[in-house]
Amino acid sequence: MTAGTIAAQDEAKERPAVDAFPSRREPRPSILPRKDPVVYGTVQKGGLEAAAVAQYERDGFLSFDRFLDASTVATLCEEMGQLCRDADPSDSAVVREPEGDPIRPIFAVHERSPVFDRIVRDKRILAIVEQLLGGPVYVHQTRINYKSGFEGEQFYWHSDFETWHTEDGMPRMRAASISIALCENTPLNGPLMLIPGSHKHYVTCVGVTPEDHFKQSLRRQEVGVPDPGSLSWLAESAGRIDAPVGPAGSMVLFDCNTMHGSNSNITPFPRSNLFVVYNSVENALVAPFGGTKPRPPFIAARNFAPLTPA
Amino acid sequence: MTAGTIAAQDEAKERPAVDAFPSRREPRPSILPRKDPVVYGTVQKGGLEAAAVAQYERDGFLSFDRFLDASTVATLCEEMGQLCRDADPSDSAVVREPEGDPIRPIFAVHERSPVFDRIVRDKRILAIVEQLLGGPVYVHQTRINYKSGFEGEQFYWHSDFETWHTEDGMPRMRAASISIALCENTPLNGPLMLIPGSHKHYVTCVGVTPEDHFKQSLRRQEVGVPDPGSLSWLAESAGRIDAPVGPAGSMVLFDCNTMHGSNSNITPFPRSNLFVVYNSVENALVAPFGGTKPRPPFIAARNFAPLTPA
Repeated sequence: MTAGTIAAQDEAKERPAVDAFPSRREPRPSILPRKDPVVYGTVQKGGLEAAAVAQYERDGFLSFDRFLDASTVATLCEEMGQLCRDADPSDSAVVREPEGDPIRPIFAVHERSPVFDRIVRDKRILAIVEQLLGGPVYVHQTRINYKSGFEGEQFYWHSDFETWHTEDGMPRMRAASISIALCENTPLNGPLMLIPGSHKHYVTCVGVTPEDHFKQSLRRQEVGVPDPGSLSWLAESAGRIDAPVGPAGSMVLFDCNTMHGSNSNITPFPRSNLFVVYNSVENALVAPFGGTKPRPPFIAARNFAPLTPA
Repeated sequence: MTAGTIAAQDEAKERPAVDAFPSRREPRPSILPRKDPVVYGTVQKGGLEAAAVAQYERDGFLSFDRFLDASTVATLCEEMGQLCRDADPSDSAVVREPEGDPIRPIFAVHERSPVFDRIVRDKRILAIVEQLLGGPVYVHQTRINYKSGFEGEQFYWHSDFETWHTEDGMPRMRAASISIALCENTPLNGPLMLIPGSHKHYVTCVGVTPEDHFKQSLRRQEVGVPDPGSLSWLAESAGRIDAPVGPAGSMVLFDCNTMHGSNSNITPFPRSNLFVVYNSVENALVAPFGGTKPRPPFIAARNFAPLTPA
């Protein structure tokens, strides 16, 4: 690849004239309607039964107990250990905890490791995601979240889409994420919490995005944070907050706009997850809607080639 | 009360020549045996059946679903709201969260409010505590822990006894605490976590206690913190960590040396608890074993008069 093609790839496409999901612009937060489908419906047959599709449409997420078998999980854990040991502290795709040394996420693991590349292109997963998003998808982001025991930090509530739209230029809500547990997830080791139904509302945030915000926000987010009033309204509307738990190999699949977060983890038991974001190839990134320069490709890929099953 | 009697009350009794539970002295942590009974056994009949007494002896705690009825809880919540509204920001018995304004504990609530005084002297509670500790008890500390929604901070693992012995001069392990839920405790709003069986081991801590440590430690503790190796060993020995949950009015009773802590709470649901420490009148405080001056009486009372049932 020549310098010219790299430059072309980094050059973001133009934004539409009207921003359907404005955020970080007004002095007060607001709750806007979703506007986009949750299930695109153009792929009739896929990895999910109709009831599961309906549940995903309603709640904004699905959980799968022991989606991967024990031997696959063991391979992934071994590979994760290798990536952690190999992690170069000067590598910007490796983020440390706000208060110290333990590693939190390692990004772009599918590019670092054939093992993770294969699981990202797992045919069962692709069949599910393509069914929901209505056709071929590419990888927007992959990472391992390593939440250590004793000092695993909390991750405050957020809609991924709010950030991906504002900071990465993702035009519409047509992306979904999977989180595969690489350790047992219990109610006490800071599991992923989701607010059912929150994906049908778009909570705009207050504050102006600084340049290179990602260097700070991956450690502790201060801009792009939803307000307590909106969060309370979402939780009260839902009547509950869910935190799917289960043994290693379990998977949570969730919409790009589902409000989620996690508490700290002081237990001795680490919580590690593989996190993969699939975006429709028809929803390729443009220039960030917040007006900042695009985040680096290890956080927001701009290679929109459709994935092929492994 | 004259200045003379205040001075006399503050004057701590002499320490025994040998410290049975030394901590914060050695450069490395260690795990020492408990040395003291868990159940003193001198009171044969009391508030608990034999099986419950045996469970407390084994695990170091007991939980009671809906120990208080809804109307009592409503009265306590109303009173808590009043204390929070009345709280004077300059009052040192009111501690704020490490990062901002929301209130965490309010101490000495039994002295501030006849409602809390009555519940502290509840005859059912006294019958249980006196049965376990073998006779009359007095109040070592009371407080309301108000863990707000959204920004309730974690409270790292600790043995209360390690602090009470080192910083307050509590000679032996002959105290027990109750935590009464004033809101629903769920697995997700930062409930109290306890390590079963941990009360039978004394984990010594590393570090020197600074003078007036309590002003910092009630916000975020850095001295008197058990090491990860000891905590892992305790959790592995137990095979689990427990976090009793339940509706408002539920109660956890735990030994002074049971290792406990709680994760942060980003849910919109606050978690408030009334916390009361009962100490045997035969275990009255002496001078702090760590050599610092005694903490103020709102944290470590030196009025050793036995409680009478309300």
